Amino acid sequence: MTPRPSQPRGAASLVARRAGIDTYQAPVVYMRADCPVCRAEGFQSQARVELSLGDRTLIATVHHVLADWLRHGEAGLSEAAWRMLHPAEGESLSVRHPPVLDSQRHIRAKVYGVPLAYPQLLAIMRDVAGNRLSDLHLASFVTACAGDRMSAAETVALTRAMIDVGERLRWPSHPVVDKHCVGGLPGNRTTPLVVAIATACGATMPKTSSRAITSPAGTADAMETLAPVDLALPAMRRVVEREGGCVVWGGAVQLSPADDVLIRVERPLELDGTAQMVASVLSKKASAGSERVLIDIPVGPTAKVRSRAAADALTAALVEVGTAVGLQLRVVQTDGAEPVGRGIGPALEAWDVLAVLQRLPAAPADLRARALLLAGHVLEIAGLAADGQGSAMARDALDSGRAWVKFQAICRAQGGMREPPRALYTADCVARAAGVVTGVDNRRIAMAAKLAGAPAARAAGVTMEVKLGQRVERGQPLFRLHAQSAGELAYAEAYVAGQQDLVTIGPGP
Amino acid sequence: MTPRPSQPRGAASLVARRAGIDTYQAPVVYMRADCPVCRAEGFQSQARVELSLGDRTLIATVHHVLADWLRHGEAGLSEAAWRMLHPAEGESLSVRHPPVLDSQRHIRAKVYGVPLAYPQLLAIMRDVAGNRLSDLHLASFVTACAGDRMSAAETVALTRAMIDVGERLRWPSHPVVDKHCVGGLPGNRTTPLVVAIATACGATMPKTSSRAITSPAGTADAMETLAPVDLALPAMRRVVEREGGCVVWGGAVQLSPADDVLIRVERPLELDGTAQMVASVLSKKASAGSERVLIDIPVGPTAKVRSRAAADALTAALVEVGTAVGLQLRVVQTDGAEPVGRGIGPALEAWDVLAVLQRLPAAPADLRARALLLAGHVLEIAGLAADGQGSAMARDALDSGRAWVKFQAICRAQGGMREPPRALYTADCVARAAGVVTGVDNRRIAMAAKLAGAPAARAAGVTMEVKLGQRVERGQPLFRLHAQSAGELAYAEAYVAGQQDLVTIGPGP
Repeated sequence: MTPRPSQPRGAASLVARRAGIDTYQAPVVYMRADCPVCRAEGFQSQARVELSLGDRTLIATVHHVLADWLRHGEAGLSEAAWRMLHPAEGESLSVRHPPVLDSQRHIRAKVYGVPLAYPQLLAIMRDVAGNRLSDLHLASFVTACAGDRMSAAETVALTRAMIDVGERLRWPSHPVVDKHCVGGLPGNRTTPLVVAIATACGATMPKTSSRAITSPAGTADAMETLAPVDLALPAMRRVVEREGGCVVWGGAVQLSPADDVLIRVERPLELDGTAQMVASVLSKKASAGSERVLIDIPVGPTAKVRSRAAADALTAALVEVGTAVGLQLRVVQTDGAEPVGRGIGPALEAWDVLAVLQRLPAAPADLRARALLLAGHVLEIAGLAADGQGSAMARDALDSGRAWVKFQAICRAQGGMREPPRALYTADCVARAAGVVTGVDNRRIAMAAKLAGAPAARAAGVTMEVKLGQRVERGQPLFRLHAQSAGELAYAEAYVAGQQDLVTIGPGP
Repeated sequence: MTPRPSQPRGAASLVARRAGIDTYQAPVVYMRADCPVCRAEGFQSQARVELSLGDRTLIATVHHVLADWLRHGEAGLSEAAWRMLHPAEGESLSVRHPPVLDSQRHIRAKVYGVPLAYPQLLAIMRDVAGNRLSDLHLASFVTACAGDRMSAAETVALTRAMIDVGERLRWPSHPVVDKHCVGGLPGNRTTPLVVAIATACGATMPKTSSRAITSPAGTADAMETLAPVDLALPAMRRVVEREGGCVVWGGAVQLSPADDVLIRVERPLELDGTAQMVASVLSKKASAGSERVLIDIPVGPTAKVRSRAAADALTAALVEVGTAVGLQLRVVQTDGAEPVGRGIGPALEAWDVLAVLQRLPAAPADLRARALLLAGHVLEIAGLAADGQGSAMARDALDSGRAWVKFQAICRAQGGMREPPRALYTADCVARAAGVVTGVDNRRIAMAAKLAGAPAARAAGVTMEVKLGQRVERGQPLFRLHAQSAGELAYAEAYVAGQQDLVTIGPGP
């Protein structure tokens, strides 16, 4: 059966114009509703169209313009579309209907419960990384894979697909070690400390970190308040060759470009399912060229992982998928009962890191202890310390000041060390009655930090003023809200005022 | 625990400006990235904000503007936002952070497999109907409820919630009858025929229909090419009081406003799961005041319902939920092997309907037979014909011309009868070899019709030129593509050229 008459697939031409509208990462093309191309091609508002310029193509969403700032014959590009296609102002673009994407069919199959294999997941990850799927399809895919909806085999295939659509690094020194925390515990910013200690002891630790998904800060967000983290691959390579390690943002080096796109929809949906988490973590580790990886799973009633059983299940999934993609993993479960350190939010956590490195008297003891524990494990899996001896080696590197010297050298190599910002607005939340702190709700404390503006507002967040088991008096500050705008401070305060038992006070002993 | 100092929740003021940008139904507010409100409140691009004007509030997505068409102190509103808030040009709006929505938490729980009860589903449907949820959250909800992820109890609760957030009609005459086809069979446009026949025989049939979700045409789309269908409630009531029935668009009478919003994301995702389908259909029937409802389930290898077992499961779900919300249902399963009639697409289907009503020699016999079968059942459940006698009564109403007279009267009452449009561009798809038609792929034929522009382009779609079992010669047209633009015709042709066996030709007998 052949169509008759046969015609080439139609394409129309429009002049590129930078619309000056920031739609975040979703590419939008503004076209006049009354333009002949829209009429001839039937491009409705919200239609998806393919734009091309030379060998670059992009699928964007159409928004119709009825006003005169856009002229006939022009295609206005949102900032994201302009960045991806980078035309010269006034250059001609081809505009046509997009191809029917197989990946959309695969996503739909998964929604209806059909398991996906590597070829389908690769097709989806290619279109995710290439920004060819709409936010609706991304949201649908992330939802369909959430909870326990991905089998072990699917998670392995998803991890491989995520690795295969990005770069994969190779390093001259071996073994390459890494550490990762599955998150969910506010303020648990051990990574910069572990990298400083381990590399000070001779480990090779090219650390790529992510930005926050559902938390008030990711390691990359916190590190960015101390030094540049958006290093391209050659720059990252130079840092690691000189210092043995780094702490950079994984998105800038394009190690797992599909993951970076998925995070864009996971964040507003507050979804971060097991399979996505395992695939995201392990694909980034494998892509970064890591060979031996320490994973930290904090367990607590209001942490991301709430029970020993859930931690064991996640451990099993990580080890199974990690082994399948050629990684050696060591997994440790740590106490996740309350936030770590004082600060929650990018800059506030960075101040804690500095206090530990500088051995200040006020440095949070719990953050220091966790960093030493984890650094000890890293030194052991790196083969630099015998089993059971890592922690002592780590403590020596920290207490001697060698870790602090190394950290400054890494920051300089990444582009220069800087001082984290301080928030303009603060408000204390105080105890209504005297007693003993018997509980801290990690999730709602994290929510308060986010409503105060973290992570986008770097200085925003929460500082904990008390620890579990501590005796408090009526009116004593329990935690402090930090914000960069009066509106955000008011928003976080309104939330806190409507909540009970963010910090639980019990009767004293 | 109280925040100190206590502050009212902040709101800033901006001047409303109609941006002249059509983002379809998703409300967008354009704000200058450098405007003091954005800086003070921390509104990032893609943030959700609450706009209010008097007692009207709206949650919209922020797009930052870096260009000069928007002035400092202005909030540009997309067409949808302008429509929902309807300010005067230059009027002042309050802009603030939106409240944290409980419905988002409920959606997230469902994604992770927690069953939802009526109170949670009501909260979600309220925010859906109030346009307070982002497209990402809507996509996530629809995905989380797709496939077999909703229990019978959840489906009943969802149906009740959808009924309870909209209007509910009462009619003076009883019983009020209705019919509904679950769809999936291109061209199966029996509803206008059944309404004409049943009301010609004295039934009360106030029919509200939907627009296409994943198909090339819904009943409302096809009927709209013959008469206005976007009647408000008082107008619909006058039509039914005068003629006994109508065929209007359910969205215009706001019977199930939540459903209309959900359809906006179900359509691009091509999702239309069982629970959503049952809740959508039955909530609309109950809201429309229907008491006895005939449901038509076409079953075929490429129809929406593919097997007898699936049809039985859907029948059971419909009857269980229908009974729970107080409806009497009769369900019939019909042959879904190939498209019904000739036309697929709003206007093309309307022409088929007219041919049957006017008893033209070329009227499609299969469409006529199905309409008589279904109208017969409707007359029986209405109590107007004894069981087994309905079809004969229906045939008499059609063949006597009474149904045609009634249909014209209904169209006049709805605002005036009109002639459906004809497409400007057509292309035939022909047989590559002689033989007998042994199969028609409903789904891919529907896809071709959609790529040709249906349902948005009213005259676009496909006409079937052959039927199953028919002998064809090499080069004989199998079906014809109809489009309103050259681009869409080319797009549909390119799709068809890349497909095999849209129509299967086997060796002759």
